[in-house]
Amino acid sequence: MADGTWDVYLSGEIHSDWRQRIEEGAREAGLPVSFSAPVTDHAASDDAGTGTLGEESDSFWRDHMGAGVNAIRTQTLIRNSDVVVVRFGDKYRQWNAAFDAGFAAALGKPVVTLHDGDLDHALKEVDRAALATAREPDQVVDVLRYVIEGELPG
Amino acid sequence: MADGTWDVYLSGEIHSDWRQRIEEGAREAGLPVSFSAPVTDHAASDDAGTGTLGEESDSFWRDHMGAGVNAIRTQTLIRNSDVVVVRFGDKYRQWNAAFDAGFAAALGKPVVTLHDGDLDHALKEVDRAALATAREPDQVVDVLRYVIEGELPG
Amino acid sequence: MADGTWDVYLSGEIHSDWRQRIEEGAREAGLPVSFSAPVTDHAASDDAGTGTLGEESDSFWRDHMGAGVNAIRTQTLIRNSDVVVVRFGDKYRQWNAAFDAGFAAALGKPVVTLHDGDLDHALKEVDRAALATAREPDQVVDVLRYVIEGELPG
Amino acid sequence: MADGTWDVYLSGEIHSDWRQRIEEGAREAGLPVSFSAPVTDHAASDDAGTGTLGEESDSFWRDHMGAGVNAIRTQTLIRNSDVVVVRFGDKYRQWNAAFDAGFAAALGKPVVTLHDGDLDHALKEVDRAALATAREPDQVVDVLRYVIEGELPG
Amino acid sequence: MADGTWDVYLSGEIHSDWRQRIEEGAREAGLPVSFSAPVTDHAASDDAGTGTLGEESDSFWRDHMGAGVNAIRTQTLIRNSDVVVVRFGDKYRQWNAAFDAGFAAALGKPVVTLHDGDLDHALKEVDRAALATAREPDQVVDVLRYVIEGELPG
Amino acid sequence: MADGTWDVYLSGEIHSDWRQRIEEGAREAGLPVSFSAPVTDHAASDDAGTGTLGEESDSFWRDHMGAGVNAIRTQTLIRNSDVVVVRFGDKYRQWNAAFDAGFAAALGKPVVTLHDGDLDHALKEVDRAALATAREPDQVVDVLRYVIEGELPG
Amino acid sequence: MADGTWDVYLSGEIHSDWRQRIEEGAREAGLPVSFSAPVTDHAASDDAGTGTLGEESDSFWRDHMGAGVNAIRTQTLIRNSDVVVVRFGDKYRQWNAAFDAGFAAALGKPVVTLHDGDLDHALKEVDRAALATAREPDQVVDVLRYVIEGELPG
Amino acid sequence: MADGTWDVYLSGEIHSDWRQRIEEGAREAGLPVSFSAPVTDHAASDDAGTGTLGEESDSFWRDHMGAGVNAIRTQTLIRNSDVVVVRFGDKYRQWNAAFDAGFAAALGKPVVTLHDGDLDHALKEVDRAALATAREPDQVVDVLRYVIEGELPG
Repeated sequence: MADGTWDVYLSGEIHSDWRQRIEEGAREAGLPVSFSAPVTDHAASDDAGTGTLGEESDSFWRDHMGAGVNAIRTQTLIRNSDVVVVRFGDKYRQWNAAFDAGFAAALGKPVVTLHDGDLDHALKEVDRAALATAREPDQVVDVLRYVIEGELPG
Repeated sequence: MADGTWDVYLSGEIHSDWRQRIEEGAREAGLPVSFSAPVTDHAASDDAGTGTLGEESDSFWRDHMGAGVNAIRTQTLIRNSDVVVVRFGDKYRQWNAAFDAGFAAALGKPVVTLHDGDLDHALKEVDRAALATAREPDQVVDVLRYVIEGELPG
Repeated sequence: MADGTWDVYLSGEIHSDWRQRIEEGAREAGLPVSFSAPVTDHAASDDAGTGTLGEESDSFWRDHMGAGVNAIRTQTLIRNSDVVVVRFGDKYRQWNAAFDAGFAAALGKPVVTLHDGDLDHALKEVDRAALATAREPDQVVDVLRYVIEGELPG
Repeated sequence: MADGTWDVYLSGEIHSDWRQRIEEGAREAGLPVSFSAPVTDHAASDDAGTGTLGEESDSFWRDHMGAGVNAIRTQTLIRNSDVVVVRFGDKYRQWNAAFDAGFAAALGKPVVTLHDGDLDHALKEVDRAALATAREPDQVVDVLRYVIEGELPG
Repeated sequence: MADGTWDVYLSGEIHSDWRQRIEEGAREAGLPVSFSAPVTDHAASDDAGTGTLGEESDSFWRDHMGAGVNAIRTQTLIRNSDVVVVRFGDKYRQWNAAFDAGFAAALGKPVVTLHDGDLDHALKEVDRAALATAREPDQVVDVLRYVIEGELPG
Repeated sequence: MADGTWDVYLSGEIHSDWRQRIEEGAREAGLPVSFSAPVTDHAASDDAGTGTLGEESDSFWRDHMGAGVNAIRTQTLIRNSDVVVVRFGDKYRQWNAAFDAGFAAALGKPVVTLHDGDLDHALKEVDRAALATAREPDQVVDVLRYVIEGELPG
Repeated sequence: MADGTWDVYLSGEIHSDWRQRIEEGAREAGLPVSFSAPVTDHAASDDAGTGTLGEESDSFWRDHMGAGVNAIRTQTLIRNSDVVVVRFGDKYRQWNAAFDAGFAAALGKPVVTLHDGDLDHALKEVDRAALATAREPDQVVDVLRYVIEGELPG
Repeated sequence: MADGTWDVYLSGEIHSDWRQRIEEGAREAGLPVSFSAPVTDHAASDDAGTGTLGEESDSFWRDHMGAGVNAIRTQTLIRNSDVVVVRFGDKYRQWNAAFDAGFAAALGKPVVTLHDGDLDHALKEVDRAALATAREPDQVVDVLRYVIEGELPG
């Protein structure tokens, strides 16, 4: 946090527009927030290693290289954040989102989870480590507005 | 602390004007201080969870949700602060104030307590963990001026 | 934790037999637990400073000395513990209990609170920072047995 | 680690016999290892909250209570461990396993992952944070034997 | 450190002009350094407690109050610093200077000591924990210039 | 990291132009990066102690003084960095580069190594602790661009 | 602390029998305490470097070597201790005692100071960082007995 | 450290008998020391990955797997140690030894280096971070005896 601007990291699902909705909502609300996120271009993210460090034919090591390069970004931004929002969608396993939640929790960062109710039971450990569980991006904006400005919606 | 501005968190009682008095005193003294605090609107604070995340009929969980949302604010601001001032009044139990003092102390933050003498015995453990105990908001301003500018009153 | 024995610190109220009930329950259940606590003899605790370091006529400083000596014990035992149980009763302000809870939470220690339902609203911040809230000492024993042995009652 | 005995935490899947296979392998190899794990009785784990702290009709909060009680165990054992092994199976989402991996990684604990090759891409971030990725429980035993005794199989 | 400006804390002796000499030297060298220090007005420092928090007749507690208020300043500035310079003169016992050196060392802050050769034997433990021992303020400026700009004098 | 500018420390070899190539590449790419490095003037670095603190005839202690002064710079900049790049060349032993890598790794800083393939076996422990291993300075620029901007080359 | 035995480090003055008096008092009281201390043989301590690592003709470096070897002992024992007692006598400057107090305080160790009243003003910063200030070794024993056993003298 | 036994990690060169000489010397001196080390069988160490986790044809990744498995051992033992001794010989590059020294230094572990004088200049940064530099294994034993027993040789 510098000059009262909150650094909020948006972890997790990259196949819906939840980040944009939170960012737009925060902008409309005039909140002093600086958002960051993993690289959300799926193809680029998968090529993060080979696209920067050179070819690799073995799929395990290709992923390993890519995950290393992505981790430079994600670990740095999580360590630098004030709040970590973690979104779980209904597709894919999203283990990296849960990993980020655990990483953030161990660092003492406040975690907010965002997911539908049908994932509740599967996410109970992650939700327990979070300080809030939201269903909709607008609720995350409401939480941020309250947390930063002290104002409730409506 | 950025550019020599001290971040001071004002924890505790929300039913008197002690925060305004400290903030006004610091402004009059021209101190480079940035104040922060929990949400001091009692009703809003109680509705922090249901007002942002949705209804909850059970009072325990309603409080639980609200306390979680409030904790995003308070823990972040305490971790970001240079000095934590904790005020205890004569009403209510104010366990959150004592909790904040313990939290701040364990993080190595300098704590200043502010309360009347008739609470001394009940607050002896908290006062012992503090680096100063003041009786009046003006004394807190005097402490801040001395700490930041090196000048004593008068 | 040494040799599989869990160190559990029992913080808070000193005017009822809740510690004995937990200790007896754990013993009956054969749990590998080592309990510790603040000095629970109220008179001795109040005289901890003057009784060891010499007379002091001013009540504020007498309390200050006593709280310092008590803090050598409590901070060391909390730092050394695996789990911190914090009991709030209906008498006295018990700010030291809430302070211990904040101190433990900031250190990443699992906290269990123990109190009646009529204190729920006043304790919502402390309960939120805890991983469990119990109403009866027996429930704390049940939690410890589950946590250590993986067995539920009955 | 006490007296040269390594504390190894076995996180993740609870529906196959991988823990027993590792424990048996370590015993046969005579390794000085003390294993710990979450409660692996699925029903007990789900009832951890209501079975100890009392009834709760709302499923979200029932899970929340249970996850809190389970977290007392898991966080304590992970903090106390020297090595964390995390197993991912082909069923269920196992977000708690990934959460544990992130939690352990942020604490600087060496992580070993254990899963089939068809999960490689989905687990690439978790595997990258690990110091070894095994396919079979026997390989974990081989890693532990090498790490502790310096001996390779065969 | 913000925007490449180094925060340097100048601890210790308050009866000679060594701080001014270092600050002037740094200014002349155009170094991006922001200096901080304890309150160097001896009388004000001794009255830090009673001058802000109220009268106290007992000398031990008067000092205790003053030291507490001064510690709010010194601990905050040391924690916020990049380099800690500690000056020992030939008068007074200056235990607070040695205390600051130990405090800074335990926090991993680079320490530079500044004293005459006749204090070498008495200061050997402090000098060992330092990364440089200077005899003259100009040498401290030379060290800072080298450390920040990479340039040696002459 | 302040205002979104990443602090990147460039450790290691000082006899080729790899730092300039990375800095130029980052500038051309318009990356918000602030680079820092040890003093790369070999003669000045060797004289860091005697050039600032006075003569020393014994070579071991002359090096000791110099290494202390250099460490004020390097440890401060590494602690302040977001990413540490460590370059190993084919000449000299460069133990300080490996030391920096270990120091950074223990602090949880993301490390990127940069070296030719013929050093792979000798550097396997260092490379394992890194999140990326590059062969050419341009690849480090590519990694930084991806990490900061999310864009892959070409 | 292992098996309930408290590790107490006795820092400071080596020219009177205060350590023996505390150790005897603790033994007579049957306290579960394990004491440690710096090497108190003044001549051996001064020769710690040259006596183990070889000759050194320059007095500054001879002290430097000795202080380094002594620091291996003192820093390890302080980090391993539960309580640090620091004794200041009326002779010598004892800067290492104040350094130890600062080092211990920054690590969050409870500090007890032991000195005569005529040193109060000079030691006010150190005493403020301590949780108790004793005048006589017997009082330190009384503090330890209270802290460990909960019993006051007489 | 448990029960007064010091944990000493012996890092670095694996091609001479320096570890045995230190271990024998410590045994003859009757020192309460528990030694640990990396796997010193060069062939086993190189096969640590493929020997436990399965074949890998690419030499970079084979080393990567091996270094990961070895790091489980070395990082755990270094974190668990009280003192880290790092030996540099005249053969090989031994970057892992320098890495271990940096890792240990950042964790606040006392480091002792052991090497011939002709490596002094190349090792100046590592030696500066160490608390003692020895030439012969016997000197390391002498340091350990002094550090633990307070006795100088002869």
